[in-house]
Amino acid sequence: MNRISITEVAPRDGWQSVCGILPTEHKLDLIELMLQAGVRHIQLGSFVSPKAIPQMADVRRLVQTLIERHPKAAFSALVPNLYGARAAVESGLREITCVISVSESHNKANLNLSIDRSFDELARIRAQFPALRIHLDAATAFGCPFEGRTSLDKLMPFLERAVRIGVDGIDLCDTIGVAHPSQIACYVSAVQRAFPNMHLAVHIHDTRNMGMLNTWTAIHAGVTSVQTALGGLGGCPFAPGASGNTATEDLVYLLEREGYDTGISFSKLLAAAKRMHETVAGNYSGHHLNIGADRVRTPNEQ
Amino acid sequence: MNRISITEVAPRDGWQSVCGILPTEHKLDLIELMLQAGVRHIQLGSFVSPKAIPQMADVRRLVQTLIERHPKAAFSALVPNLYGARAAVESGLREITCVISVSESHNKANLNLSIDRSFDELARIRAQFPALRIHLDAATAFGCPFEGRTSLDKLMPFLERAVRIGVDGIDLCDTIGVAHPSQIACYVSAVQRAFPNMHLAVHIHDTRNMGMLNTWTAIHAGVTSVQTALGGLGGCPFAPGASGNTATEDLVYLLEREGYDTGISFSKLLAAAKRMHETVAGNYSGHHLNIGADRVRTPNEQ
Repeated sequence: MNRISITEVAPRDGWQSVCGILPTEHKLDLIELMLQAGVRHIQLGSFVSPKAIPQMADVRRLVQTLIERHPKAAFSALVPNLYGARAAVESGLREITCVISVSESHNKANLNLSIDRSFDELARIRAQFPALRIHLDAATAFGCPFEGRTSLDKLMPFLERAVRIGVDGIDLCDTIGVAHPSQIACYVSAVQRAFPNMHLAVHIHDTRNMGMLNTWTAIHAGVTSVQTALGGLGGCPFAPGASGNTATEDLVYLLEREGYDTGISFSKLLAAAKRMHETVAGNYSGHHLNIGADRVRTPNEQ
Repeated sequence: MNRISITEVAPRDGWQSVCGILPTEHKLDLIELMLQAGVRHIQLGSFVSPKAIPQMADVRRLVQTLIERHPKAAFSALVPNLYGARAAVESGLREITCVISVSESHNKANLNLSIDRSFDELARIRAQFPALRIHLDAATAFGCPFEGRTSLDKLMPFLERAVRIGVDGIDLCDTIGVAHPSQIACYVSAVQRAFPNMHLAVHIHDTRNMGMLNTWTAIHAGVTSVQTALGGLGGCPFAPGASGNTATEDLVYLLEREGYDTGISFSKLLAAAKRMHETVAGNYSGHHLNIGADRVRTPNEQ
């Protein structure tokens, strides 16, 4: 049975988009439900200035508490620079995700840094923490709200730069949900050919209703690791018009029906999504959220 | 360039799901916008008892008005029996869609008829109107809310029965949005092999967020005719938990990006969807509806 590894990003990409500050205890309760459903990989938040994203002000406490409770879970967090990476390591994380946009204008809007400056930070992080697992979130890998379609000619040297610095994994992020299936298949194949031993994931936004299709296409192209958000909650505050990621529970349902193993219980995960939907106001795109409990599965479904 | 023929079903499958009666003039205005966007095939409504679906009480007037205004458009309507077919023909239609469910319990719930009785009606319609183009909507072709998964062993003899009676086209309907890609590919291939000269379409509901994926999969399997609903408006009142069809404008965007020709202007169609969204309260699943006008296309998109 094919195994697909799902990284849950709602605590980072989803919660940063909601209005009002979620109390840490509320976050912990929801993350516990995700873990109970079998989710192993979770991005817990971002180590950024609380002035930039107030929702992430409690990220240290959240990370420390969860690592203490679940020492074997695969937690990570997003960091934009060396300062954030230090804080992440001090909190106990052994894996981080560094985000850099392939397009200069989006990197400026998102991080207020040039791409060169971001790569300098990445190199410093690599040098200072040789044992830390570092993934690169290549934002706007397929398209940018300001510069339009991202060409492979632009993407590949960008990724080579990260690989030379020594990242352990690459996440191709469709930040504004503008990728389409043939582009996904083409870019994924090119990256696999260029870096055959690199851990590769996709992070797809569902802005134009292609979230499930693009994620599925990436899996068919050989990707075995994907990032999704519970309930499809989300949106990037610095990418106008962007909406949330592909909904984790909808993808788990699809993969289960298609005979893939995710290690996640669909019914428990849907219960977690419904709990979040009922208690956290935000922009949700998950479809199973709207189906009555007695109708989620038809009679002879497994 | 590959051509995909899209049949717009919001005036039938969408509007029957909304609360309150849409005035005929409002319906006409919205259908005019669809036609102006380049939509050629439209299911205008259902010839059913106004007691069963009050929303369709004006279907005769709607059909007559539109045929007079647009004699070359490809209009059709749904009919459940000979009585409805007569009314459709009297209104000027040259094409109808007869709906019969593959599962007995859904046919009872939807039409209050046995499948045998429905096929008797179909045979009478065929005999009485030899020049009429008749498509079969095979409802619950992939799964039923009461009986679960529909097997090919059940579907194929059902379709053979319709073909022997002399239908001109078959629509495989995923009435409750429970089909998944490998099932779509398998069933479409089986039907194409069995009836190579039959016009074949799919009608997919987006209940579980697989609407775009399943429609796309059917197209990849060789289907060149699909049914979708503007805005993703809809839901079957007799299939609990069902939601609307795949959103026409989202599919047109995808097909345009992938180099298919639909003959439809995406921007005009999206304007029509937004007009409907603003003026008709209902359950919409289309994603482009939520994107700000200035962000629907990124800079270097065609």
